[in-house]
Amino acid sequence: MTSKKKFIAVIGGGDCSPQEARLAEEVGRELVRHGAILVCGGLGGVMEAACRGASSEGGITIGILPGDTRQAANPYVQIPVITGMGQARNVIVVKSAQAVIAVGGSYGTLSEISHALQNGIPVIGLNTWSLSRNGQPDNSIIPAQNPTEAVEKAINLIIK
Amino acid sequence: MTSKKKFIAVIGGGDCSPQEARLAEEVGRELVRHGAILVCGGLGGVMEAACRGASSEGGITIGILPGDTRQAANPYVQIPVITGMGQARNVIVVKSAQAVIAVGGSYGTLSEISHALQNGIPVIGLNTWSLSRNGQPDNSIIPAQNPTEAVEKAINLIIK
Amino acid sequence: MTSKKKFIAVIGGGDCSPQEARLAEEVGRELVRHGAILVCGGLGGVMEAACRGASSEGGITIGILPGDTRQAANPYVQIPVITGMGQARNVIVVKSAQAVIAVGGSYGTLSEISHALQNGIPVIGLNTWSLSRNGQPDNSIIPAQNPTEAVEKAINLIIK
Amino acid sequence: MTSKKKFIAVIGGGDCSPQEARLAEEVGRELVRHGAILVCGGLGGVMEAACRGASSEGGITIGILPGDTRQAANPYVQIPVITGMGQARNVIVVKSAQAVIAVGGSYGTLSEISHALQNGIPVIGLNTWSLSRNGQPDNSIIPAQNPTEAVEKAINLIIK
Repeated sequence: MTSKKKFIAVIGGGDCSPQEARLAEEVGRELVRHGAILVCGGLGGVMEAACRGASSEGGITIGILPGDTRQAANPYVQIPVITGMGQARNVIVVKSAQAVIAVGGSYGTLSEISHALQNGIPVIGLNTWSLSRNGQPDNSIIPAQNPTEAVEKAINLIIK
Repeated sequence: MTSKKKFIAVIGGGDCSPQEARLAEEVGRELVRHGAILVCGGLGGVMEAACRGASSEGGITIGILPGDTRQAANPYVQIPVITGMGQARNVIVVKSAQAVIAVGGSYGTLSEISHALQNGIPVIGLNTWSLSRNGQPDNSIIPAQNPTEAVEKAINLIIK
Repeated sequence: MTSKKKFIAVIGGGDCSPQEARLAEEVGRELVRHGAILVCGGLGGVMEAACRGASSEGGITIGILPGDTRQAANPYVQIPVITGMGQARNVIVVKSAQAVIAVGGSYGTLSEISHALQNGIPVIGLNTWSLSRNGQPDNSIIPAQNPTEAVEKAINLIIK
Repeated sequence: MTSKKKFIAVIGGGDCSPQEARLAEEVGRELVRHGAILVCGGLGGVMEAACRGASSEGGITIGILPGDTRQAANPYVQIPVITGMGQARNVIVVKSAQAVIAVGGSYGTLSEISHALQNGIPVIGLNTWSLSRNGQPDNSIIPAQNPTEAVEKAINLIIK
């Protein structure tokens, strides 16, 4: 039964702008409309907005928490996973997903983008990082213009 | 909404005896009848039997996997969490639970019992380890005579 | 050059009795006299006493710390490794050693004993846990009567 | 005594070009000439070249390994730390350092750069990634023209 479900991570800052929150909430809603389960880091900002959107559509939300308490989860996390591992939990967030959508974000988000790309997990970006390596652009982060496009690209690129 | 749900881990060997499998499967069933969500290490043996029992009652099963692939999950895991962290995932299995039920088990199970006790998470034991420290019995593992008793004790001892 | 060195972990409580501290300090001294490098969890109690003993003989001490700051290391740690991973660092302490000596200790120490046994790493015990599984004694923890005997047994049982 | 020592990480690909290897080896030598201890991921490529350089100057080399065996360490690692945690060890490599020097590198290196920046640990870059966020350049990676300049900048920027 596991194989039928799609797990997609939404990553971004624990603090975010109102615009990023709107984008993330719409990404959360669209994910559920496309039959996906939301994976995230379980805290505030982009994570909370995405969980709020997914919950509003009746979806399932998984929060992989860095600390030791389930109380740290945002109120829309249904399945809190408590790691007590700090930033190392970023690795688990992306490995548990079959595609990743990044909304804005700072260095923690960049670490998740990097771990995803290292694992061959597709990364879709909305107003997020862009990369170049040794002076050459690296186009591994797939740009999207809006939440619907981001979710459609993520669904189409899902890895097994 | 998170606060209403109860998360209980079932721990035990990836290989187990038929008797242990029967105990674990019944524990899985009873957990769902008591409204709990099953957390486990996601692999075979006791973990698979518990997931099978929980699934047969329509429950939710979470598998915190040590490796890098979702394919390693037993077929009854609905929510696979992929850590890529080997044994360190044992810490996450117990921290993500509000009580732990141990069925048999070897040293990996003992490590999970230890991490749970270190975190103040109650541990109920069915045919599992017993401990003594510096010659004095340590009775922190709460014995149960059967799966129903194990689940009732776990539900009653749940931590927030 | 790595292959010539012996890495031995000393595990035990962050708080300990004066007697345990004396044992751990002598274990630290003996390890260095036998040419071993000390690995530990880097904090106080048994860990600090072992590091103090090793340092007094001019040995090398490695502290695998659970938190995010090097300042948490006891003053005798020469090589602090900062994990930020909480209890999951217990796995690293034992995996980084070729044999483990347990002095007293509570559930954290028991988790380290368990992880070591799960990895086939020999565990020598001084006034520490004893185990039984499903009613049968498990004699995997090798008892020692004093620090010298503990270190000699550890050195002789070292794994590659 | 810990406080007197400087721990600096060298990060980069497990495979690397001959030019990157030359840069990394010279970085390793310069670090030791400046009294620093080398931290790295313990494997081949840039990590091995840096360890070889540090060893040739009589320095100390620490390798934080992703796998379960000390045999995976390159031959110039003197202190192998065995995590068994896969990519999550990247977090430990950078947290254990007071400054980081990146030489080339792919997505694993980018994850280490990100984790370092998230922790406020200075990152010096030699022919490595450059970043922009939401269309604006992010100049957090401090460029260096050659190994000597990289090491001098790292030493001057060290965090406590």
